[in-house]
Amino acid sequence: MSQSNQPGAAKRIYYFSPGHTEGGRSLRDVLGSKGANLAEMTGIGLPVPPGFIITTHCCAEYQQNGGRLPAGLMDEVRAYLARLEQETGKSFGAGTNPLLVSVRSGAAVSMPGMMDTVLNLGLNAESVAGLARATGNRRFALDALRRLIHMFGDVVMNVPHAEFENAFTAVKKKFGVTHDTELDAEGLDELIRAYRHVYRKHAGRNFPGDPMQQLELAIEAVFRSWNTARAVAYRRIHNIRGLLGTAVNVQTMVFGNMDSDSGTGVAFTRDPTSGANDLYGEFLIDAQGEDVVAGIRTPQPVADMRRWKPELYRQVLRVKHTLENHYREMQDVEFTIERGELYILQTRTGKRTGPAAVRIAVDMVRERLITQRTALLRVPPNDLDQLLLPSFDHRARRTVLTRGLPASPGAASGVPVFTADEAVERASDGTKVILVRRETSPEDIQGMHAAEGILTSTGGSTSHAAVVARGWGKCCITGAAELQIDEAARRLTVRGQTLTGSDIISIDGGSGEVMLGDVPKRPPVFTDEFRTLMSWADRTRKLVIRTNADTPADAKAARKFGAEGIGLCRTEHMFFGEQRITAMREMILAEDEKGRRAALKKLLPFQRRDFEGIFRAMDGLPVTIRLLDPPLHEFLPQTPAAQQQMAQAMNVPVEQVRRRVEQLHEINPMLGHRGCRLTVTFPEVLEMQVTAIVEATINCRRRRVRALPEIMIPLVGVDRELALLRELTERTIAEVCRRRKFRGVLHVPIGTMIEIPRAALTADQIALHADFFSFGTNDLTQMTLGFSRDDIASFMPGYLEKNLLDRNPFQTLDAVGVGQLVEMAVTRGRGAKPKLKCGVCGEHGGDPESIQFFQSAGLDYVSCSPFRVPVARLAAAQAVLLNQMDLFT
Amino acid sequence: MSQSNQPGAAKRIYYFSPGHTEGGRSLRDVLGSKGANLAEMTGIGLPVPPGFIITTHCCAEYQQNGGRLPAGLMDEVRAYLARLEQETGKSFGAGTNPLLVSVRSGAAVSMPGMMDTVLNLGLNAESVAGLARATGNRRFALDALRRLIHMFGDVVMNVPHAEFENAFTAVKKKFGVTHDTELDAEGLDELIRAYRHVYRKHAGRNFPGDPMQQLELAIEAVFRSWNTARAVAYRRIHNIRGLLGTAVNVQTMVFGNMDSDSGTGVAFTRDPTSGANDLYGEFLIDAQGEDVVAGIRTPQPVADMRRWKPELYRQVLRVKHTLENHYREMQDVEFTIERGELYILQTRTGKRTGPAAVRIAVDMVRERLITQRTALLRVPPNDLDQLLLPSFDHRARRTVLTRGLPASPGAASGVPVFTADEAVERASDGTKVILVRRETSPEDIQGMHAAEGILTSTGGSTSHAAVVARGWGKCCITGAAELQIDEAARRLTVRGQTLTGSDIISIDGGSGEVMLGDVPKRPPVFTDEFRTLMSWADRTRKLVIRTNADTPADAKAARKFGAEGIGLCRTEHMFFGEQRITAMREMILAEDEKGRRAALKKLLPFQRRDFEGIFRAMDGLPVTIRLLDPPLHEFLPQTPAAQQQMAQAMNVPVEQVRRRVEQLHEINPMLGHRGCRLTVTFPEVLEMQVTAIVEATINCRRRRVRALPEIMIPLVGVDRELALLRELTERTIAEVCRRRKFRGVLHVPIGTMIEIPRAALTADQIALHADFFSFGTNDLTQMTLGFSRDDIASFMPGYLEKNLLDRNPFQTLDAVGVGQLVEMAVTRGRGAKPKLKCGVCGEHGGDPESIQFFQSAGLDYVSCSPFRVPVARLAAAQAVLLNQMDLFT
Repeated sequence: MSQSNQPGAAKRIYYFSPGHTEGGRSLRDVLGSKGANLAEMTGIGLPVPPGFIITTHCCAEYQQNGGRLPAGLMDEVRAYLARLEQETGKSFGAGTNPLLVSVRSGAAVSMPGMMDTVLNLGLNAESVAGLARATGNRRFALDALRRLIHMFGDVVMNVPHAEFENAFTAVKKKFGVTHDTELDAEGLDELIRAYRHVYRKHAGRNFPGDPMQQLELAIEAVFRSWNTARAVAYRRIHNIRGLLGTAVNVQTMVFGNMDSDSGTGVAFTRDPTSGANDLYGEFLIDAQGEDVVAGIRTPQPVADMRRWKPELYRQVLRVKHTLENHYREMQDVEFTIERGELYILQTRTGKRTGPAAVRIAVDMVRERLITQRTALLRVPPNDLDQLLLPSFDHRARRTVLTRGLPASPGAASGVPVFTADEAVERASDGTKVILVRRETSPEDIQGMHAAEGILTSTGGSTSHAAVVARGWGKCCITGAAELQIDEAARRLTVRGQTLTGSDIISIDGGSGEVMLGDVPKRPPVFTDEFRTLMSWADRTRKLVIRTNADTPADAKAARKFGAEGIGLCRTEHMFFGEQRITAMREMILAEDEKGRRAALKKLLPFQRRDFEGIFRAMDGLPVTIRLLDPPLHEFLPQTPAAQQQMAQAMNVPVEQVRRRVEQLHEINPMLGHRGCRLTVTFPEVLEMQVTAIVEATINCRRRRVRALPEIMIPLVGVDRELALLRELTERTIAEVCRRRKFRGVLHVPIGTMIEIPRAALTADQIALHADFFSFGTNDLTQMTLGFSRDDIASFMPGYLEKNLLDRNPFQTLDAVGVGQLVEMAVTRGRGAKPKLKCGVCGEHGGDPESIQFFQSAGLDYVSCSPFRVPVARLAAAQAVLLNQMDLFT
Repeated sequence: MSQSNQPGAAKRIYYFSPGHTEGGRSLRDVLGSKGANLAEMTGIGLPVPPGFIITTHCCAEYQQNGGRLPAGLMDEVRAYLARLEQETGKSFGAGTNPLLVSVRSGAAVSMPGMMDTVLNLGLNAESVAGLARATGNRRFALDALRRLIHMFGDVVMNVPHAEFENAFTAVKKKFGVTHDTELDAEGLDELIRAYRHVYRKHAGRNFPGDPMQQLELAIEAVFRSWNTARAVAYRRIHNIRGLLGTAVNVQTMVFGNMDSDSGTGVAFTRDPTSGANDLYGEFLIDAQGEDVVAGIRTPQPVADMRRWKPELYRQVLRVKHTLENHYREMQDVEFTIERGELYILQTRTGKRTGPAAVRIAVDMVRERLITQRTALLRVPPNDLDQLLLPSFDHRARRTVLTRGLPASPGAASGVPVFTADEAVERASDGTKVILVRRETSPEDIQGMHAAEGILTSTGGSTSHAAVVARGWGKCCITGAAELQIDEAARRLTVRGQTLTGSDIISIDGGSGEVMLGDVPKRPPVFTDEFRTLMSWADRTRKLVIRTNADTPADAKAARKFGAEGIGLCRTEHMFFGEQRITAMREMILAEDEKGRRAALKKLLPFQRRDFEGIFRAMDGLPVTIRLLDPPLHEFLPQTPAAQQQMAQAMNVPVEQVRRRVEQLHEINPMLGHRGCRLTVTFPEVLEMQVTAIVEATINCRRRRVRALPEIMIPLVGVDRELALLRELTERTIAEVCRRRKFRGVLHVPIGTMIEIPRAALTADQIALHADFFSFGTNDLTQMTLGFSRDDIASFMPGYLEKNLLDRNPFQTLDAVGVGQLVEMAVTRGRGAKPKLKCGVCGEHGGDPESIQFFQSAGLDYVSCSPFRVPVARLAAAQAVLLNQMDLFT
């Protein structure tokens, strides 16, 4: 057909049919995504209804012409239509065996806001009669026409959709029927008259009886839709540039609702839930695609086709193999059977659960369809959560009360409790509880630990509750703003419904849904395929994966998930046990250094025991311990009642407690007296912690446990801070070794967190005193962007909605801004000390996209919460593969 | 004498005497600062007691030898001593006319912790008798010996100082006298015996009777003192490197207490208070330097010398001229008269007040002693404060109650008041009040304005109180932690003393002193010399100087001080008037945009009027207006009582107020919902403000006032924020122009503050949407260093004390860290937009050292509070001169 193109001009129309196919996947820019795929499928021998594609060049030309079709285009269209008629044996607009076509838009990138589909083009009074005759089904033919008038009017001529709906309602009422499908031929006749009237009224002229006019108007409508306000805004917002326009797909209609030998269905080439290599899906006999959606009839499993039409079923199985061999990926296929003839209307990559993604990827490697590299890239790392945490049965019914931010994945059910104490108390007899609070603070730790899950009405995905919960792999929802929590009355109101400690709620940390009742759960799935995929990931990745863990239990869990060390062991949570918090508070209330040392002496044995437990759990692997970081006021109670209680417990006047709390109050605690600033002021705290670390190390080594501590000094912004504290740390290590008669050299690397912008800017100076850098990307993000992560809920949703930011920078590292500081610190740090070890221990250490950045930035390791370790292992492997691909493109 | 040096080795000893002088100022590294100056003065013919200097090389050699004097050094010393004997006609250790010498340390840089002076070396039994004979004053001779034993024992042999004191006390008791000077010769004899005993007991041997042994031990002691722990620490802390060691100064003793023709004094070559070109100082007849210090006798004005010994007075005047002609600087001279003979012991640059500095600099240019460039560099810019603000009379008595941080200079007295309302009320009848608060907030603005001065018990020098006060040039002390403020009882307790509203206190914003009573003040001095110096500064500087001003009064004041525009006009203070705050609160409480717009409509006329006033005050000069910056909760009352009051005033339930306050509460407000984030969420606020600006501009222009507004969008961290808000601003400008039928083009530059690290890092992107950058170095410092300026009081003093930071980074820009971001932003911003105007509007805009940095960084202007404008003008001139000097060194 190429002879019909203008000489010297680009080819304008591409044809596809079993007999002759032009183009394919590689011509996506010219044919659009949908068209390219239709041509591709036809090319590999799949039974696709034939048709042709008008290129995106024509769309560009249309716009340049000021909204006129390129000269001669319709002549070419006519020529291709003629070929279609010839191949199908049907005639466009004819009274006998009429050819009907669909018209669809389709750019190279999927884009909402462009023109919807128009089906059944080519119908008019004459061809309706022909269609009725050809199918022996007048109702069917009339139904096809009323659909055409509705769609054409709506999509091409902007006739208000509601007007057609109103007309339909009126006719149904008149004929005393409820469902559209119950209207008989007579009713449809009347409906078509009413539709024609609506059309004329709004379009200002009659519905065109000339099929070629229908087609031309539809093609123009597709081209026009490229520049609707919505489409333009979408491209601007998503920064989509360089596209020519949309293509137009003109394709022969096939009908699954012609008779009882017809049908329609959707099939996955593998089970999208389990990943099993079985055809999966459903179909309906004598029905069209939209009937499946309408939900009036219940579809049958696709396996039932075997009984209905065995040969057709075998044909579908052959299609499955053809598609998978060609696309080397699990496919989601739409098909229609017209009078016993199978047609494939669409294929695309099928969506799947995490477990299915893993299984399909590994199976396809075994089946030699794909390489291990491809398999590694096929599984979205975040989907691994579904293999590692319990989840709600997706078939279970959910009564959703409200929705919050999905802060930590998992599924949990229990009675709501409103204070940490209540949580501990009720959980002590085995009752499953959900801790429901406005927000949580370190005082709540015990209650948070006792709860099955945590639900807060304020805070974002990096609030205290969220961070702690993720560290534990505990389900958590934050910022569920509709919750009204009455702590005193121990009750919770949401959308007018009140719940107390005798109700049960379920929370889905993956979706953010808060549900009524005990929704059934499925346990985590730790499959062979998962282990296989992880082994490939481990062979591929270059980043070491460590974990953030503060307890032996967390450390063990993380090790099971493949952690190669602890990258962040926070010491502050260790001060919250019953006796510990009292000693800690004594230290804070002390008037002088002597008083502080006396209190610290009581804390020392606890700290030492904590470290011993963690060293045992991580035997032979490095453990990076961060010295005390939070401001001291976090260890004091804030409410008058709790202060009274503390004063009584410690036998001091409540006034003293109150005064100290007031003294320690800070306007912006994030930027206050915390981190290494505390140990500059109170060096005895550092001495106690370092003593505990070294004593624990010596005790472990003497019991043949290979304890490998690393000491990390937080919040350094000035090189001299680190110089001073490093010196004190080294002196303390030496003193303890001498006192404990430790022979040989106890090598304890001493490093710092890079979490203050100035630290990154002066990394060359700081590196001189550091054995390693660990990027605290949470705080670095807070300070570099000036965002308090506790306070962003008020504006962050608007920022994402208005596209001022592409992503929440606390979830995925802001590579453009914060990333510059990371790169600068690595470069300058290694410039001063070439073997400087660099890693990250902020929340971003478990985020796949951020991990890719860290790999490019040249980090040695990432550290993340235990349940993110497998995610990080896979993401680190993908980072290597993606960076290699970047090199070649 | 050079023949006595070792051939090939460096010269070890330098001699100075009227007859022969070696070395001078240029040999500071070798002779130390003190020695070089003695040689210099001798060289220009001043009557300096002769002596010699052992070089710093010898000290280095001593250390390298492991603490032994270089071989042959003492032989050389002996040779020089012989010359000294010859020239003075005295003999070292002789029974007749004995030569006594002093031994002093002296490195190239002044350094505490090194050896103190030893006077009267050369005394023993024999020479004491000789001295008594030569002076005819046995008591004098014995007194000289007891001083020698004491000083030598203490300084050279480490005999405990207290032991000598105890012995002295015992002898005085025995002889029934009170003062040291009352002891007669007999008493002194006994005291010397006691001293010799103390010496023997601690030094383990007798006080050396051999003068040469005394000298050798003293020289060694000086060399040893170079490496005392205190001296080493001092050099480490102050980063003093590359010095060889200390020199040793051996100088002939002269005595002002020999008889009534002797005396001692201190003179300034000009009046250090006024700068007048008159000899100024005081002297005592028959006294030693330390007698002046002891304060037992009252010295006479130096002018009285004219009556006492006219020729000597003329000689002192000649010394003044010699010194000023030589040093070309005002000098502070120590002199001694021994038996009618004048000796100059020391000269150094004299300290002076601000007014004196200005007058001396300008006078010396007129006298052709120095150039204008030198004059400009001679005046410390911060000293100009004393010319611009009232100050306490430095002769007045001060009863200091406590001391806080000197947050804003000036002097103020008044009754203490404890709330803003009380301040307004009591000030309304003309009572002068000092507002005393724990801390201030924007709610206190009216009261702060009504007060003479502000005193807070918490907060640093960049707290709210400090920043606002400096903006107004109002005296302020913050962080006076000893104050216990009882707001309810309206009283104030400090060190056990209680003050109420009927007492008067005075506060000195330059020293931080809080004083009892109404301390007398001096008005500011606006001299001709000041104007002359400023005119030279203006011709020299390149930086434009703008001011931070929010009111017409401030703007006028700043203009008077030479401001060339407003660099920062904050709009938030404009919302605190009676009717305004109500409308503002209505806006904040509104449930929807409609409600907000209704409230904003009420604010519009106020804003417009404010801007008109400011435009009129700045007629013809640019005015940069910053759109609303603080978080909304700053406009709501925080205490329950005030919330109740507000609810009543606005006729809404108090619960609604309380809930909104709670909703708006932020953990870290500095990093929260403020700045441009507010106008992203509530664009109608920006529309109102821009409308007010444009309407005010049009109104002014129609009345021939040249209003030149510039609109500044605060807290931008992401380029798209600025793009969005710029577009809205431009649209609003165009709409108002259309509505108000403004003809022609209203050009309003639109820029942004660079105050978030990310803004600096992405300045190339941000510059595309900005006509100017204004560095908000306060917030940039907060975020880059992670220091909340409201909360640094807990650790900053320790940081400065431990030398972790050289300076408070909120006073002087942290060039190493924050400065990198400033330079980066300027370079990247101008890379994208070469003509981008860059300035600074943070507190650092008024700090001389920071201004020097801004000049090097290539900024176009700095903006500071009105009272800092002259300081900035001078500092900007110095920056040009200093940068030029850098180019040549």
